[in-house]
Amino acid sequence: MPNISNKGLSMPQSPIRKLVPYAELAYSKGKTVYHLNIGQPDIKTPQIAMDAVKVHSLDILAYTRSEGSDEYRTKIANYYSKHDINITKHDIIVTTGGSEALLFAFGSVMDTDDEIIIPEPFYANYNGFSTASGVKIVPVISKIEDNFALPPIEEFEKLITPKTKAILICNPGNPTGYLYSKEEIKKLAAIVKKHDLFLIADEVYREFAYDGIKHYSILQEEGLDEHAIVIDSVSKRYSMCGARIGCLVSRNKAVIATALKFAQARLSPPTLAQIASEAALDTPQSYFDDVINEYVKRRNTLISELKKIEGLKVATPKGAFYCIVELPVKNSDDFAQWLLESFDVNGETVMVAPAGGFYSSPGVGLNQIRIAYVLKEESLIKAVHILKEALKVYQD
Amino acid sequence: MPNISNKGLSMPQSPIRKLVPYAELAYSKGKTVYHLNIGQPDIKTPQIAMDAVKVHSLDILAYTRSEGSDEYRTKIANYYSKHDINITKHDIIVTTGGSEALLFAFGSVMDTDDEIIIPEPFYANYNGFSTASGVKIVPVISKIEDNFALPPIEEFEKLITPKTKAILICNPGNPTGYLYSKEEIKKLAAIVKKHDLFLIADEVYREFAYDGIKHYSILQEEGLDEHAIVIDSVSKRYSMCGARIGCLVSRNKAVIATALKFAQARLSPPTLAQIASEAALDTPQSYFDDVINEYVKRRNTLISELKKIEGLKVATPKGAFYCIVELPVKNSDDFAQWLLESFDVNGETVMVAPAGGFYSSPGVGLNQIRIAYVLKEESLIKAVHILKEALKVYQD
Repeated sequence: MPNISNKGLSMPQSPIRKLVPYAELAYSKGKTVYHLNIGQPDIKTPQIAMDAVKVHSLDILAYTRSEGSDEYRTKIANYYSKHDINITKHDIIVTTGGSEALLFAFGSVMDTDDEIIIPEPFYANYNGFSTASGVKIVPVISKIEDNFALPPIEEFEKLITPKTKAILICNPGNPTGYLYSKEEIKKLAAIVKKHDLFLIADEVYREFAYDGIKHYSILQEEGLDEHAIVIDSVSKRYSMCGARIGCLVSRNKAVIATALKFAQARLSPPTLAQIASEAALDTPQSYFDDVINEYVKRRNTLISELKKIEGLKVATPKGAFYCIVELPVKNSDDFAQWLLESFDVNGETVMVAPAGGFYSSPGVGLNQIRIAYVLKEESLIKAVHILKEALKVYQD
Repeated sequence: MPNISNKGLSMPQSPIRKLVPYAELAYSKGKTVYHLNIGQPDIKTPQIAMDAVKVHSLDILAYTRSEGSDEYRTKIANYYSKHDINITKHDIIVTTGGSEALLFAFGSVMDTDDEIIIPEPFYANYNGFSTASGVKIVPVISKIEDNFALPPIEEFEKLITPKTKAILICNPGNPTGYLYSKEEIKKLAAIVKKHDLFLIADEVYREFAYDGIKHYSILQEEGLDEHAIVIDSVSKRYSMCGARIGCLVSRNKAVIATALKFAQARLSPPTLAQIASEAALDTPQSYFDDVINEYVKRRNTLISELKKIEGLKVATPKGAFYCIVELPVKNSDDFAQWLLESFDVNGETVMVAPAGGFYSSPGVGLNQIRIAYVLKEESLIKAVHILKEALKVYQD
């Protein structure tokens, strides 16, 4: 029997996936499960996007250009200009989700065994993409006590080696909800310029900035044209996770020319989803205002309810729709499994994402979970109540 | 300025892409260009597939399971059983096109610097996927004189090293149109079993088998369960290239479990396109009968017209919709450019794909082109006439 590759063996499994059989067990017992684990918003997709695929008159579902259709890229450039980011369609490659944009960025700037510095906790799939690309993540730890602010610059510089090619941030952050300030972006800009590195920013949650703070993109920072690569996606912006449309944006011509070669190899991003995504760009601002009001309400409710639980720590998120919660348990993997397998309040329980998978430093974050507040307020209140009751009786 | 990766620099550019500016020049001069270069069929997508995305009642365009929806995978398994291939939904991972299935297969069975043997000429993007995956293609040459039949087994065995992990075939072949016989598949099965290798077969053109010959899948060959990995796609089958839906199929549980980890990292294949692809599986056999009749007519016309040109060699394809043509020119890259830049017959010219990009052996295939017969018969006749006139005057 031929062998699986070492790369394949090293590919991490999704931290949530391990819990799926226990969730199925809970369903089979008739339990209601509140899903605090997922990043799939319950917000409706803009009707304008869904309608666009219903009214087209295509006879042949053909390839588009590998970099995405001209019309769509032109409209994306317009979208950015409304966010004070001046780019043209030539700086954009449409990708199959933010996922593919990350793979193209990794492939374009790093070789096997090169290193990328990422503040942790970070989006768990960065582990998968780095393994698939053969590169090594070097984590710099951000702390719940500091609300997950950017670690001091000295901490980054300590980690830079000749193999370091890039720094990657997620802004606002999944799983922390942290929103980097202009000053923090300027600090990162200074390091990447000093050490000749790329700065990759995953800005898929750009719109989800709360408390009147404005998101500051790395593409707004002057002097960073050769360094900045933005990863973007329609998934969360328009509640279109299933579209699988994202993009890679950079003013560095060599980066775009190289990413285009990866794009050409896979021919085209999905055509129907590009039609929907292009239409989604006409979504009125009122949609975002409503969505953001809803998330702020949910966040406020969630955080105030969580803070009533003794021994629990939470960093108030300023963006996205996640937060990291530190629990008075030893191992949140075991706790999450136990919640599904052995606990309920009147037939109801919760599913949470153990936070270990969001760290690459071994043993860090084991007493933390990620909560996604993509449920209605009344469900969040019930879910936190269940968590509170669970912690009263759980023993590890 | 930070540097692009060596991997990025090594990514091949599409052989056709280089010609695009010359095609645009031809358009700008008002020339009509017959596109013999592309693999985008002009056949209509089945109405049933296009209608499916128009009548759905989704409120949220959500992720599906990473391996594809249960309903779709169940229907794919039924499709295979109609082709005498017994598999279940558990043997299938739905991918974003055949392209992603290839990337998952490469990642699951090969590490950096591992080797894969591929009969050449081969689908040009295998070069891109192997560069992206950090693996090395070892070509075994099939010849136009042999109609591109499987090279002798000794030729494969000579190339096997401890680094060799897999053999990849495309059946029927792009760019050759070659359809492997049952006996050839059995020979390949014997080698991969003897040397403990994977056998990856790109069978995206399965339905396009002509002259009454039945396609024989590696999944029909007994004793190959641990070795066989099939790459499939809806792109050509239903003229749905823009859907970007394919799948990876294997009875090897470790391969599926590993490919699933790559699939989880990118979350989900496109949801709308899965809806269309699931509906496409209900396409009646009459659609294929019509399509295949059409391709056979086109092939017959194309080949008989081509054979009228002196000094030209062509291997009659038995499947897919491509053929390789050897021309009395030194360099088909230059010739293809000249056709667009400097030649026309009454304002009409042709665009062809130079075949150099379908070989990884340097200097091989430079006097060959690939023709895709995805145009109507009358256009093919005109296009070949232009080619004939061009060869009369071209000097290299």
